[in-house]
Amino acid sequence: MSQQTIFADPPLGARALDLLRTRATGYQILTPGKPASSVLAQAEVDPNFVHADIAFGQPHLESIYAAGNLKWIQVSSAGFTRYDTPDFRKYVADRGILVTNSSSVYARACAEHAFSFMLANSRLLPQALVSRALNGSPEWFSLRSGSRSLYGQSVVILGYGGIARELVKLLAPFQMKITAMRRQPRGDEGLPVITEADLPAALAQADHVINILPENAASRGFIGASRLAAMKQGAVFHNIGRGTTVDQHALANSLHSGHLSAAWLDVTDPEPLPEEHPLRLAPHCYITPHTAGGHDAEDETLVRHFVENLHRYQAGEPLADRIM
Amino acid sequence: MSQQTIFADPPLGARALDLLRTRATGYQILTPGKPASSVLAQAEVDPNFVHADIAFGQPHLESIYAAGNLKWIQVSSAGFTRYDTPDFRKYVADRGILVTNSSSVYARACAEHAFSFMLANSRLLPQALVSRALNGSPEWFSLRSGSRSLYGQSVVILGYGGIARELVKLLAPFQMKITAMRRQPRGDEGLPVITEADLPAALAQADHVINILPENAASRGFIGASRLAAMKQGAVFHNIGRGTTVDQHALANSLHSGHLSAAWLDVTDPEPLPEEHPLRLAPHCYITPHTAGGHDAEDETLVRHFVENLHRYQAGEPLADRIM
Repeated sequence: MSQQTIFADPPLGARALDLLRTRATGYQILTPGKPASSVLAQAEVDPNFVHADIAFGQPHLESIYAAGNLKWIQVSSAGFTRYDTPDFRKYVADRGILVTNSSSVYARACAEHAFSFMLANSRLLPQALVSRALNGSPEWFSLRSGSRSLYGQSVVILGYGGIARELVKLLAPFQMKITAMRRQPRGDEGLPVITEADLPAALAQADHVINILPENAASRGFIGASRLAAMKQGAVFHNIGRGTTVDQHALANSLHSGHLSAAWLDVTDPEPLPEEHPLRLAPHCYITPHTAGGHDAEDETLVRHFVENLHRYQAGEPLADRIM
Repeated sequence: MSQQTIFADPPLGARALDLLRTRATGYQILTPGKPASSVLAQAEVDPNFVHADIAFGQPHLESIYAAGNLKWIQVSSAGFTRYDTPDFRKYVADRGILVTNSSSVYARACAEHAFSFMLANSRLLPQALVSRALNGSPEWFSLRSGSRSLYGQSVVILGYGGIARELVKLLAPFQMKITAMRRQPRGDEGLPVITEADLPAALAQADHVINILPENAASRGFIGASRLAAMKQGAVFHNIGRGTTVDQHALANSLHSGHLSAAWLDVTDPEPLPEEHPLRLAPHCYITPHTAGGHDAEDETLVRHFVENLHRYQAGEPLADRIM
């Protein structure tokens, strides 16, 4: 077998690129003339992509369709909206192209980010960190008595993948009542799993709703006015999935009305939201700029995860994080 | 035995007072003419205190010395600085007065508060919540790569009591390397425990230093310039004990120099700090106004904890949270 070619388009630092070159021995590694701006951004069409046997990054659909030798694509993010269409799924199925993503790379960081949202909210950090309350003052009593324990509270997680599994592990000491919604329950989740049909009843009980849904045709606008209304009075909504899965105007209305007590969003549509957006003006709406998956030396974790899959690929073993 | 008298001075809401009256059956319950401003504030001298067999709250020392029948004091806070003197310890020992505190009441809330500090810091929430970074921008890369996982990090806890035990339980899924400093290790802590002599070596390794020391003669100014210098470059210092255990000017200097990467303080000296205080101006210094122990219906938890001890007292059993 002649030497195979990996086309790697993520923006990799020198150490990460070096790691890729030394661990992917025996492969020719091509990188784009112009690197993608981030691990989330679609690469530009590159003339060299046509030689790729393996693609690692966010290859342009046009590049993929033109690469006759392509056998495996590893997407460098957890989300894969641009590839999640019936047409693309049919194309890769017909050609026998494997598609994996990098959800394991971001799962722990995303879970810790969601957890930081939950604890910051329950300890009223946004209010307490700017307070100058004197011990014994009405403001002080209000901050103290408004603080909540996560212990024993109720959580609904929308989307049960790698991030949710990590989050469930982290929450274990709090003995929370956790329910997950999944399109296709498998029975091996180790916690109560429901489908969309049972969601309203679950939402009515939850202190925290944690949205980790990926974006696709079925999830767009999934959290709209009626599901927000189905949530318990005073519930907290968290989104670390994709901004497009939420009707943002309906969410702003729910916060203004006081039905939801807070929203913590790492993802919005668009990112960042303009200053005059209703969610920027909604009470208790806390937004981070899509940093949930971020961690120290992220590009090296990304490469390590790819190389581990590459070794599985060489050995003919099943790939991790297979999505198609 | 004639009816015994409980003098209860904490500021209790109607439900908490009702709970006390219905659960402490057989006791006369006296409350002060003027309630204390908070569960932390010393009560004023009250003429009726002289009848107390049992005191629940923050009785004035003068009142205690005048109450000839007093057999047990349950302090309504975790800290008990005003009682923690050799003179007072000798006085209650000589008279056979039992002294307990309410540390169990606040342990979980304090542990969750400290944990919220750790996660908010590791996920860079103070920076990310005000950021408008565009995906792929230098600020965005900086926020993502500056975010850290708590997983496997190293922690030193100063003071190993009820709060520390709760915190250790909550941190379990993160598989952190946790060491506790305790004046008198008992060997049953279930984690490495050191004394003051071994502290510099432990501080040099710790990503997080969590100060839960109570205030007393030995702990005043405990975290001074030399112990701050002994901490690892980039370490994060947390204080949920008492503000007086820290040399605040030395802490501000350490933050200005960049030796410590952040400080998260729920307690300061005084509370609140004046606006022109060096810690208010120090970089990455995050302060909450002594709200760590706060939780929903705090006064009811406080009463329940007191009543449980009262039942032990009646049954002649050892009291919980005994401090003297």
